[in-house]
Amino acid sequence: MLKEISGGVCAAKGFTASGIHCGVKAGSSPDKNDLAMILSEQECAAAAVYTLNRVKAAPIYVTMGHLEDGVCRGIIANSGNANACAPQSHENAEQMCALAAKATGLKPIDFVVASTGVIGQELNISAIEKGMPTLVSALNSDGSDAAAHAVMTTDTVKKETAVSVNIGGKTVTIGAIAKGSGMIHPNMGTMLCFITTDCAITQDVLQDALHEIIPRTFNRVTVDGDTSTNDMCVVLANGMAGNEQIEWKDDSYTLFYKALYQVCETMARAIAADGEGASRLVTCTVRSARSEESAERLAKAVVGSSLVKAALFGADANWGRVLCAMGYSKAPFRPEYVDISFSSIQGSILVCEKGTGLDFDEELAKKILTQDEVVIDVSLNEGGSEATCWGCDLTYEYVKINGDYRT
Amino acid sequence: MLKEISGGVCAAKGFTASGIHCGVKAGSSPDKNDLAMILSEQECAAAAVYTLNRVKAAPIYVTMGHLEDGVCRGIIANSGNANACAPQSHENAEQMCALAAKATGLKPIDFVVASTGVIGQELNISAIEKGMPTLVSALNSDGSDAAAHAVMTTDTVKKETAVSVNIGGKTVTIGAIAKGSGMIHPNMGTMLCFITTDCAITQDVLQDALHEIIPRTFNRVTVDGDTSTNDMCVVLANGMAGNEQIEWKDDSYTLFYKALYQVCETMARAIAADGEGASRLVTCTVRSARSEESAERLAKAVVGSSLVKAALFGADANWGRVLCAMGYSKAPFRPEYVDISFSSIQGSILVCEKGTGLDFDEELAKKILTQDEVVIDVSLNEGGSEATCWGCDLTYEYVKINGDYRT
Repeated sequence: MLKEISGGVCAAKGFTASGIHCGVKAGSSPDKNDLAMILSEQECAAAAVYTLNRVKAAPIYVTMGHLEDGVCRGIIANSGNANACAPQSHENAEQMCALAAKATGLKPIDFVVASTGVIGQELNISAIEKGMPTLVSALNSDGSDAAAHAVMTTDTVKKETAVSVNIGGKTVTIGAIAKGSGMIHPNMGTMLCFITTDCAITQDVLQDALHEIIPRTFNRVTVDGDTSTNDMCVVLANGMAGNEQIEWKDDSYTLFYKALYQVCETMARAIAADGEGASRLVTCTVRSARSEESAERLAKAVVGSSLVKAALFGADANWGRVLCAMGYSKAPFRPEYVDISFSSIQGSILVCEKGTGLDFDEELAKKILTQDEVVIDVSLNEGGSEATCWGCDLTYEYVKINGDYRT
Repeated sequence: MLKEISGGVCAAKGFTASGIHCGVKAGSSPDKNDLAMILSEQECAAAAVYTLNRVKAAPIYVTMGHLEDGVCRGIIANSGNANACAPQSHENAEQMCALAAKATGLKPIDFVVASTGVIGQELNISAIEKGMPTLVSALNSDGSDAAAHAVMTTDTVKKETAVSVNIGGKTVTIGAIAKGSGMIHPNMGTMLCFITTDCAITQDVLQDALHEIIPRTFNRVTVDGDTSTNDMCVVLANGMAGNEQIEWKDDSYTLFYKALYQVCETMARAIAADGEGASRLVTCTVRSARSEESAERLAKAVVGSSLVKAALFGADANWGRVLCAMGYSKAPFRPEYVDISFSSIQGSILVCEKGTGLDFDEELAKKILTQDEVVIDVSLNEGGSEATCWGCDLTYEYVKINGDYRT
């Protein structure tokens, strides 16, 4: 049985975290944390997935190098600057790890490094250097909240979760913090997500689990179609739960897998719901498809369509745009078999049956569509597969945030 | 020598056009034309390209059928209703042709039919039936303007052009009207565009020319990433210029090709500049690429990026988003070779050299980026190929138009 618990990345045994303001971005508010650390008492098996963008930020390359041996001890991360396409970017990413190592008595390669923020500007490494001793002395088992805040950029709420599960008589805990908002799109980590667990599990099995879960969770979220240069999802497993080490895809693995899946799905939904400027979470489930792949492609096209997103901002039951988006997704389906309904906590309404529009109660549709979470339910009536993707509406606020509009 | 001339789709010999208001959409303003006809005195060779959306509107299928023999006499088109995924859609599309045929004394298969507007609602065919006699009696050689207005939906300006060229001692004329605005995206006709010419040219050579030109013009325009169910580009050639019929890809063909290319490029740029809610035309040229295909893919990713579009709305020289969009385009290039500059009639400014940001004059950048047309110039420094794509900025107005936002 999975149990949701508090504590975020510090919920699992042996992990501490901290977040402080060190002034990465000139003129930033001292109330906004911009430097985070997560540290494990013991060495961790580490698995990671990175952005597929051809332009990768320096911290991605540095982390890839540090995780070549599959183990690490902690994570150092900043917001306010992406350290991508910037002067001294590689040197500065390495330097962040060196500073973290010096302050903790560990080695630079013990650290994963991540940055998020503006591209193309030199990282203020001296601010990070000055802040490092404070960051390390602030490490504590209640530090998840401060760390979660430190990786936020235009996020409006922190993203944090944790679950526990009994594996072979031991309580295994998995926690996470994430950073989402803009530039969220398949495929890839599509954001920053740091996951910690006290599960004893081998690195290769952990990496397998992550590789199976990411395509069904984070890669099914789209906010604006832009895949960032800095996306990363990392899991650190320190084994301190004392369970028998998971080395095979046995029953213990299945329990762990489900728990990790739930953590990733919770973070994925939280990222979609807090998409830049979003006023509501949009979930699209495509059912009775011939394959999961085609269901996923169709659902992704729907939640990714600017026209669908704008219609949902206006709470307009414009199902024609849903069908149109499916049409250009390149996935096979028969338009004349398609049923479409919209639903939310206010109920459900069928608006299109067998590819043709129905007369429906516009007032009820409005009531359904003005909720915080709206579901677009599509039945292809062709097979037994399904997939769910998440996105958000397209709002004035998105344009404002990204237009850097100075009136 | 190509000469720009007036007259739109009536510029070429033997073509008349008309546009009227018949009330396709209940409650629409009587000042807004919604029904258009273009007619040729003589039979035309007809070439067409259609939407690749799997969900195709009924008029697309009907037109495909009517053009199976490669000839036609005219075009009947309406705005206010897309006649897609709607009850009786196929019957109504055929009926539009039958009504046009009856009023002109021609056959239904002599007509191309096109519709644009909302999806999923039954077409008001009786309004079209009532309007048809007026539409036909209004046909005249100055009718291009009225027809261009009749196909507009959320377009803010009519799109119309014409050029003439001397081919073998004869003046050959090509004219066009188009409808663009929302749902503009590769690949396909990506809109409605009706082209008329008095050139004598065989149907297969005409179709070849269109197939070569569309990918380099209309398919290089993106407004919002949505490909409509109704896109169509049709060329009618009635041969009345009296030139020796073009049957091969000879010098005459080259002259005709260039003229048709210019007509298509003019319409493509006009559609991008008048994208839904657009405040400026965004042109991205990717140069010194290893292939035209990769240059095109990169340029398309740049003009299609919501983050680039929003930055340009705010006149923000955010070149990092340009490089990031290139990175997820899946085209091969070396980020560390890339130069990026922004330009407009106010000048040009280099902002990124060899993949790394430069210090630049923010004030000059602002001046350059606040113009009606902004060019993003990218040099890959790898080869000899290039491609240009067109788009527009992402504005509050786009969200407003598509959000059907009722405050």
